[in-house]
Amino acid sequence: MAPRLSPQAYIDGVCAGDRMVLSRAITLVESALPSDRALAAAVLEGCQRRAGTAFRLGITGVPGVGKSTFIDAYGTYLTGIGHRLAVLAIDPSSEISQGSILGDKTRMDRLSRDPQAYIRPSPARGSLGGVTRATREAILLCEAAGFDYIIIETVGVGQSEVAVHSMVDFFLLLMLAGAGDELQGIKKGIMEMADGLAINKADGENLLRAQQARAEYETALHLFPASDSGWLPRVLTCSAIADAGMAEIAAMISDYRMVCTADGWLEKQRHAQAKTWMHETIGHLLLDQFYAHPLIKKNLIQKEIDVLEGKIPPTVAATQLIALYLQQTAK
Amino acid sequence: MAPRLSPQAYIDGVCAGDRMVLSRAITLVESALPSDRALAAAVLEGCQRRAGTAFRLGITGVPGVGKSTFIDAYGTYLTGIGHRLAVLAIDPSSEISQGSILGDKTRMDRLSRDPQAYIRPSPARGSLGGVTRATREAILLCEAAGFDYIIIETVGVGQSEVAVHSMVDFFLLLMLAGAGDELQGIKKGIMEMADGLAINKADGENLLRAQQARAEYETALHLFPASDSGWLPRVLTCSAIADAGMAEIAAMISDYRMVCTADGWLEKQRHAQAKTWMHETIGHLLLDQFYAHPLIKKNLIQKEIDVLEGKIPPTVAATQLIALYLQQTAK
Repeated sequence: MAPRLSPQAYIDGVCAGDRMVLSRAITLVESALPSDRALAAAVLEGCQRRAGTAFRLGITGVPGVGKSTFIDAYGTYLTGIGHRLAVLAIDPSSEISQGSILGDKTRMDRLSRDPQAYIRPSPARGSLGGVTRATREAILLCEAAGFDYIIIETVGVGQSEVAVHSMVDFFLLLMLAGAGDELQGIKKGIMEMADGLAINKADGENLLRAQQARAEYETALHLFPASDSGWLPRVLTCSAIADAGMAEIAAMISDYRMVCTADGWLEKQRHAQAKTWMHETIGHLLLDQFYAHPLIKKNLIQKEIDVLEGKIPPTVAATQLIALYLQQTAK
Repeated sequence: MAPRLSPQAYIDGVCAGDRMVLSRAITLVESALPSDRALAAAVLEGCQRRAGTAFRLGITGVPGVGKSTFIDAYGTYLTGIGHRLAVLAIDPSSEISQGSILGDKTRMDRLSRDPQAYIRPSPARGSLGGVTRATREAILLCEAAGFDYIIIETVGVGQSEVAVHSMVDFFLLLMLAGAGDELQGIKKGIMEMADGLAINKADGENLLRAQQARAEYETALHLFPASDSGWLPRVLTCSAIADAGMAEIAAMISDYRMVCTADGWLEKQRHAQAKTWMHETIGHLLLDQFYAHPLIKKNLIQKEIDVLEGKIPPTVAATQLIALYLQQTAK
């Protein structure tokens, strides 16, 4: 473990845009050590006044949809028009797909050599709560470091899409033409959360299929509930490998940004997200503490077995575990 | 408050199908008093061996879609073919729509006079966590009382649909033809959770529109992610007021039940739900305790204001509140 800096050294380094310090600050907020948490809080408070300034784009899609190629192409487009871009990943399942974004980094060929871009590898494995908190804090740090555009990538399995959706301004779902097996990896409910769909690999003999799919999805999305923002999700096609469709996607997002800034929606959403962050973090911290307690570790599995075998109702098992926990912590 | 019975009196009464005792037992599990929680746990444990036997149907839809008329018609169909039916409601927002299902009860004309049906009014207002827990426990009690079909109704706003989805075997979404303003009340993500859609008020001059909508939704749903069960949601039309389409809806649900029992999905889903119930209840109990603490009550609002004004990052505010709480409870 690299030695820690002083709070002020982190704050000064991050706010000066020093990437080495930024990386070390992100490592700090990813740490679950109590001593690191106190230091992290001081650093985050010091950086807070420069945060909140970037546009935050969430990107998801099943494995194989071409997320890294897309981010390489779209990110290069963004830095080409003057943005300073940070790419973060949320990947709580990294026990399985361990180090995926490190692999991605090498596949983000152009971005990884682009002086206007910063790619941060996946955080160490951890609970969704821990990883979510760390990603939110990493966003703040990147903003304080002067990046005005943040892309948060999610691996497209489990609950991480919901977490990302709760921390971005625009949520983009990458798709492939053909609604069959490829969709199996997308969780129910995710598609309705998207502010925009991009059908990737719209090239060669795929082009026609992609255009058909685009029309079908556009029709389908009209039938689904409108977003609270009033924004109707758009569907576009693109080919990340051919750098095609990037300007159209940027135009869609910039339309969204204009409309939703003008009517105050983006600010309202940021406020709601900040409040949610706070309350979710409270929940995660309470749960982390509960499940880490030796007495809970010792008794949890048996209670789960009792519940699955129908011996006790789930809510009763929960009540018993909580009683056990409170007795212990009160001592 | 009615005096409490002994645990055995509740258990015996519920298992004998005594409706008066069942109602009092549900009132007991709805109570948040610590003394009632211990008694409730004993009653639930005693009833557990007769629980888990009913089919559980969740129904949601925006206000105006005709939920109570539908439940009256469909419930009457069910008791007509020999089912014993209990109707519960989950309505955590009842501070606003207070007593809605009491009103509903009078609108469920036939069911409220049907000896094979039991309608339970909405629980008292409370947190979503508390109401969710109470509803799950009420399901167990109704099953122990011999009801083999449970309908859980949700009011179609906020997070209650997600809660209901996590406690039922089949989730039915009631819709109206016309995808415009009527849909505003359905939360994003809910439509994708439905196992079936029924377009209500398919009668008179609405009939053609409803049939068109049916075809459109059926096409659209093909584009959306398949359920883990492999079941492809179906779309039907009905007219609750004319008692039309009830047999078709029953046939759809019974197909689902057959397919998903045969391949073990229903049992797998029940197991997953039981585990989720336990862990969610743990979370709710921990949070209820946290937010009820005087020190948290005193400091929470100011922290929220600080967060919304951008003075401190949300995760830091959360960490500070947790530290405050732990210091206090450790004393």
